[in-house]
Amino acid sequence: MSLEQFDAVDVIRTKRDKHHLSPGQIDWVIDAYTRGLVAEEQMSALAMAIFLNGMNRSEIERWTNAMIESGERLSYPGLTVPTADKHSTGGVGDKITLPLAPLVAVFDVAVPQLSGRGLGHTGGTLDKLESIPGWRANLTNDEVQAQLASVGAVICAAGPGLAPADKKLYALRDVTSTVECIPLIASSIMSKKIAEGTGALVLDVKVGSGAFMKDIDNARELARTMVDLGTDAGVKTVALLTNMESPLGLTAGNALEVRESVEVLAGGGPRDVVDLTVALAVEMLAAAGKPTDEVRVRTALADGRAMDVWRAMIRAQGGDPDAPLPTAKETEAIVAPADGVLARLDAYGVGVAAWRLGAGRARKEDPVQFAAGVELHAKPGDAVMAGQPLMTLHTDTPERFGRAYEALEGAWELAPIGTDIAASPVVLDRLH
Amino acid sequence: MSLEQFDAVDVIRTKRDKHHLSPGQIDWVIDAYTRGLVAEEQMSALAMAIFLNGMNRSEIERWTNAMIESGERLSYPGLTVPTADKHSTGGVGDKITLPLAPLVAVFDVAVPQLSGRGLGHTGGTLDKLESIPGWRANLTNDEVQAQLASVGAVICAAGPGLAPADKKLYALRDVTSTVECIPLIASSIMSKKIAEGTGALVLDVKVGSGAFMKDIDNARELARTMVDLGTDAGVKTVALLTNMESPLGLTAGNALEVRESVEVLAGGGPRDVVDLTVALAVEMLAAAGKPTDEVRVRTALADGRAMDVWRAMIRAQGGDPDAPLPTAKETEAIVAPADGVLARLDAYGVGVAAWRLGAGRARKEDPVQFAAGVELHAKPGDAVMAGQPLMTLHTDTPERFGRAYEALEGAWELAPIGTDIAASPVVLDRLH
Repeated sequence: MSLEQFDAVDVIRTKRDKHHLSPGQIDWVIDAYTRGLVAEEQMSALAMAIFLNGMNRSEIERWTNAMIESGERLSYPGLTVPTADKHSTGGVGDKITLPLAPLVAVFDVAVPQLSGRGLGHTGGTLDKLESIPGWRANLTNDEVQAQLASVGAVICAAGPGLAPADKKLYALRDVTSTVECIPLIASSIMSKKIAEGTGALVLDVKVGSGAFMKDIDNARELARTMVDLGTDAGVKTVALLTNMESPLGLTAGNALEVRESVEVLAGGGPRDVVDLTVALAVEMLAAAGKPTDEVRVRTALADGRAMDVWRAMIRAQGGDPDAPLPTAKETEAIVAPADGVLARLDAYGVGVAAWRLGAGRARKEDPVQFAAGVELHAKPGDAVMAGQPLMTLHTDTPERFGRAYEALEGAWELAPIGTDIAASPVVLDRLH
Repeated sequence: MSLEQFDAVDVIRTKRDKHHLSPGQIDWVIDAYTRGLVAEEQMSALAMAIFLNGMNRSEIERWTNAMIESGERLSYPGLTVPTADKHSTGGVGDKITLPLAPLVAVFDVAVPQLSGRGLGHTGGTLDKLESIPGWRANLTNDEVQAQLASVGAVICAAGPGLAPADKKLYALRDVTSTVECIPLIASSIMSKKIAEGTGALVLDVKVGSGAFMKDIDNARELARTMVDLGTDAGVKTVALLTNMESPLGLTAGNALEVRESVEVLAGGGPRDVVDLTVALAVEMLAAAGKPTDEVRVRTALADGRAMDVWRAMIRAQGGDPDAPLPTAKETEAIVAPADGVLARLDAYGVGVAAWRLGAGRARKEDPVQFAAGVELHAKPGDAVMAGQPLMTLHTDTPERFGRAYEALEGAWELAPIGTDIAASPVVLDRLH
């Protein structure tokens, strides 16, 4: 690749002065940054200028493409079935990928899910799966290809060759307060997903207290930007805006969420988790050109076919689907102080509590506790009796209970018995 | 010093989100940056956020104080006379410091001028003086004290202990397009000048094509900000806004400017250089509490007293005031293509030409050519005849002539003979 030469100082000045970055400037700055010719302090100044002055649609598209071009772009030439993937912007208790990938594979649509680890109050899919004894996240590209053909679903770590510019920039944004910026978020997510080589993509854009986007208008703008980027890159892309005011399901924490996912794959599990899993599966199958109705999808959970793919998927990556999951050394329960109806349960508070109990990490090099987290015994709208546990906190390090309790102060609310708590819909909007 | 603890990410976010930085945040971030605990990429993101979202007067004052506190603050306890200094924001042909420092010292006001080197199209005072054989820029604090007492004037390099936070930040801003920002410029200049320990300060804020500030309103805002900072810090501070549309005097380049300065000290020299030197000397003497009228100041140039101080000052720093100055290996003249009146001579074009001939540096580690530069034979308003030289280009490396000619294309203009070219005033405004 032969690139026109630019100067980092000029590129930064262009965006600083509210002009559009040219395609040549974008290609050059991303390539030079990846190769270490643009310094971290130059890229962070540019990121702040983008944060404050924005990028238009064509700049974002070019930026995304340049990040894809910074590394390899996967494809699955030997595969005889279409591919579809799902990406969630992150929420509390969001274990949906675990039942979803095997469920979609039942319908002869392969799922190449290259995933990340958790940072902050939202969990990471790889951290959850690593609580299964023996399971490994790192596969070679050949192993991914083989497993997609044999099992139909792979959930693994994105290799270092995939969008390396994004890996550097993501780490930089984290320490320079340039995270919450739609052009940078959209291009980060979509560069990885397009480079991953999926044919169809369903985006689960979370909205609410436990999500990155607290506000539905911002979430819609992010979804619109990402759908356009996917579509322009030839990936059939759809987005659902989904509710993240309360945690998904009844668990937040690695092994706790695996257990709940297995319940869903066994035909049970909390209704919101099942409903969202089914809704996303229906979207993925339609986007992959194999539309299937909701009843057929639910049947694949009920009759054990999704569970069969799950077991094969875990085994193919060295895991033992029958091994007992880790359990926490210590638990403590929070009980209802009076009879009432759970009126509110704040996803952010629960997410931070799970994180502080050891389920998440403060820095990317920190380990996680597989057994730590929060188990819920009631969801908003449920009646509870005085003394009945509302939630159980799990950790291996009981000195963490104190700060977890702090995170949960004010995170839940009881209303008098008989109060009607309006049920929140799981899916708030759909964009394509 | 015990500082409250903050997190760099939070400090950056505060300014990114258009809030005011608290005094504690400013003290912490400058101290932690100086000690390497805040990374370069974090400071550059903060600098860009400041560039785009600004700082108010109390933030700028605190920022400046924090930079002063990052190093040592000089004082001159043994000195029996008051001190005064001058700072110029940089222009083309601006050699004023050279005659000014000895001239002021004649009137028993000591001048502790800690100076910098040139970067870009404006020259640096130290580069100019280093063209004098033997002269050295680096003095210890004790040497500065002794020379102030014995000679009354010192022009030397600012030591590494003076506002080290500013040194780091200045280098960072240069590579991250965060230079042209009034709060950052004002705090950079004033932190060094206040730390230098001068009792009075006259700011020469240049306005026009050859200056950093092209526009008088911006220049006035910068001057106002700096005067307030100095005043609040107990330094008697005055600013003159002065004209930088055309070069000052008839030379731009290191040894060429020393030669012209010596002419001024010998009672001659170009009128604009003499007028500005005298105007600044009058301001410095008044600010230092020793008001003197213009006639007495001009007399000190005419009668050789300023020259005596100059010679003592150069000798005290190892220089030989009688040694011949370096001359360029090659010269080429630009001649008038027709009879006419020089209607315009652009300072920026001349500055860039001198720079490209070797008088300046592109990177701070580059050497300069002492003899390189541009010598002018006419100033705006002067009549010239066809074939008469307008300017002479000097360099040791004749391959540089080509790019110097390019810089001068369109930089000057002849009008028909008899055209009345309005003389530009040297001093445009005064703030105190």
